[in-house]
Amino acid sequence: MNIAVVGLGLIGGSLCKAIKRNTEHIVYGFDLDSTINSYALMDNATDYVLDDDNISNCDYILLSVYPKATIEFLKEKATLIKKDCVVIDCGGIKRDICEACFEIAKNNGFSFIGGHPMAGLHHSGFKYSKADLFLGASMILTPENTDNISLLENVTALIKSIGFSTVTVTTPENHDKIIAFTSQLAHIVSNAYVKSPQAKVHKGFSAGSYKDLTRVAKLNENMWTELFLLNKDNLIFEIDSIVNSLNEYKTALEKDDAETLRLLLKDGSDRKKAIDN
Amino acid sequence: MNIAVVGLGLIGGSLCKAIKRNTEHIVYGFDLDSTINSYALMDNATDYVLDDDNISNCDYILLSVYPKATIEFLKEKATLIKKDCVVIDCGGIKRDICEACFEIAKNNGFSFIGGHPMAGLHHSGFKYSKADLFLGASMILTPENTDNISLLENVTALIKSIGFSTVTVTTPENHDKIIAFTSQLAHIVSNAYVKSPQAKVHKGFSAGSYKDLTRVAKLNENMWTELFLLNKDNLIFEIDSIVNSLNEYKTALEKDDAETLRLLLKDGSDRKKAIDN
Repeated sequence: MNIAVVGLGLIGGSLCKAIKRNTEHIVYGFDLDSTINSYALMDNATDYVLDDDNISNCDYILLSVYPKATIEFLKEKATLIKKDCVVIDCGGIKRDICEACFEIAKNNGFSFIGGHPMAGLHHSGFKYSKADLFLGASMILTPENTDNISLLENVTALIKSIGFSTVTVTTPENHDKIIAFTSQLAHIVSNAYVKSPQAKVHKGFSAGSYKDLTRVAKLNENMWTELFLLNKDNLIFEIDSIVNSLNEYKTALEKDDAETLRLLLKDGSDRKKAIDN
Repeated sequence: MNIAVVGLGLIGGSLCKAIKRNTEHIVYGFDLDSTINSYALMDNATDYVLDDDNISNCDYILLSVYPKATIEFLKEKATLIKKDCVVIDCGGIKRDICEACFEIAKNNGFSFIGGHPMAGLHHSGFKYSKADLFLGASMILTPENTDNISLLENVTALIKSIGFSTVTVTTPENHDKIIAFTSQLAHIVSNAYVKSPQAKVHKGFSAGSYKDLTRVAKLNENMWTELFLLNKDNLIFEIDSIVNSLNEYKTALEKDDAETLRLLLKDGSDRKKAIDN
């Protein structure tokens, strides 16, 4: 098959490399930066540069650009895409993207499924992309409805052939609610963590817990600003939730209330055990 | 030399095993749980069970029990300890321990240095202890003063022979201030993180960032309650600091203020880069 990958950053570049390594499919890559297009060809991550003429060859189009750019791209190219093509995006939020793209797909006769690969690095860009980024990872899919079983089966088969271990199917609404907790809050908390005046002098005073808490503090602020604002209702809920919890420990400390503090800690510890077992 | 290790949990057990593996010293171990004493002997982690008769043989005594128990033990055994013995504790806070133990040591003619090995696991107990726990780790030392160079040199040599990579010398006050940030806050934030209602349904929706943020959520609530309360001033400062930061992102989200949000994220990201480079 012919598979287009639009946006050759960390995710897009890794998708190209994974498809080339794990399948026989032909990869059409496109990035706004023409240097990256050339480099991806030389690197054998792509076979062709995607353009307005060859996009109609593509059986699948994987969009791995920012959410607003995803919608813009699909709007602009909609009439060039063949009717049996399936477009899957890789954006970090799903409600806004899916609402717009389901409509564009319907009006133009092709299929669209929302997607979100659960993999990443604290680096971005093609130069960090790698064929094994998705090994062991989950791909979330948010189809418009779950009636079209053969479409879901085909997409699942493709996703697994690329290297993902599992496919999780859900609604755009549920995706955005959970991802606000599992990913967006983690980045905000980590980014906030390093703002203490003590952060500058941690060397020799830290072990694994500091390292883990601050690993994702270094992030692409442009991408995350767009993602966070498109999920602000869910993210504000999660910030409120952790701030309320933190203030409970603080109150117990202020009151020298050992028993309450112990129960708060035991509660968190028990929840963590219950989740992971 | 003869080295006593009091408290055969994760840290004490690992100290015994590291001394036995890396040095020729004789290890006298003691735990309140007599089964652990027997097991440690059979496991070749210790050579003898420490008691009131043989404690006077010991050149070094490493205390790896909770802070209050550290002070209690030293008070109780002070008259049995020989004058040229050096006692080092391994507690997670240093002000209260050092204040009491410097005094006990002075009154009884032996030496005391506060210590804190920067290593751990999210498991506790002798069964998780291992000889290589301290490889690559830092040991923080808080001597009463830095005038006694030969004492510091001897202790540093011992610490490094056990397997630690670096020794960091500081005051008890500075230790407690920084450790509130690098370790205590990390455990509180991680423990608070899993209290969101979304925590139960994260499977298939999470990657490395969730895993990192919640790794130390599972903790020994009895030990941490004691440590947190003995450092409440510093820890409350750190909780306030991160809560204030989190509320800044929240306000930017509420106002749909992309530029402020971007700058807040960039600030955290830049700080992380500056710290780690």
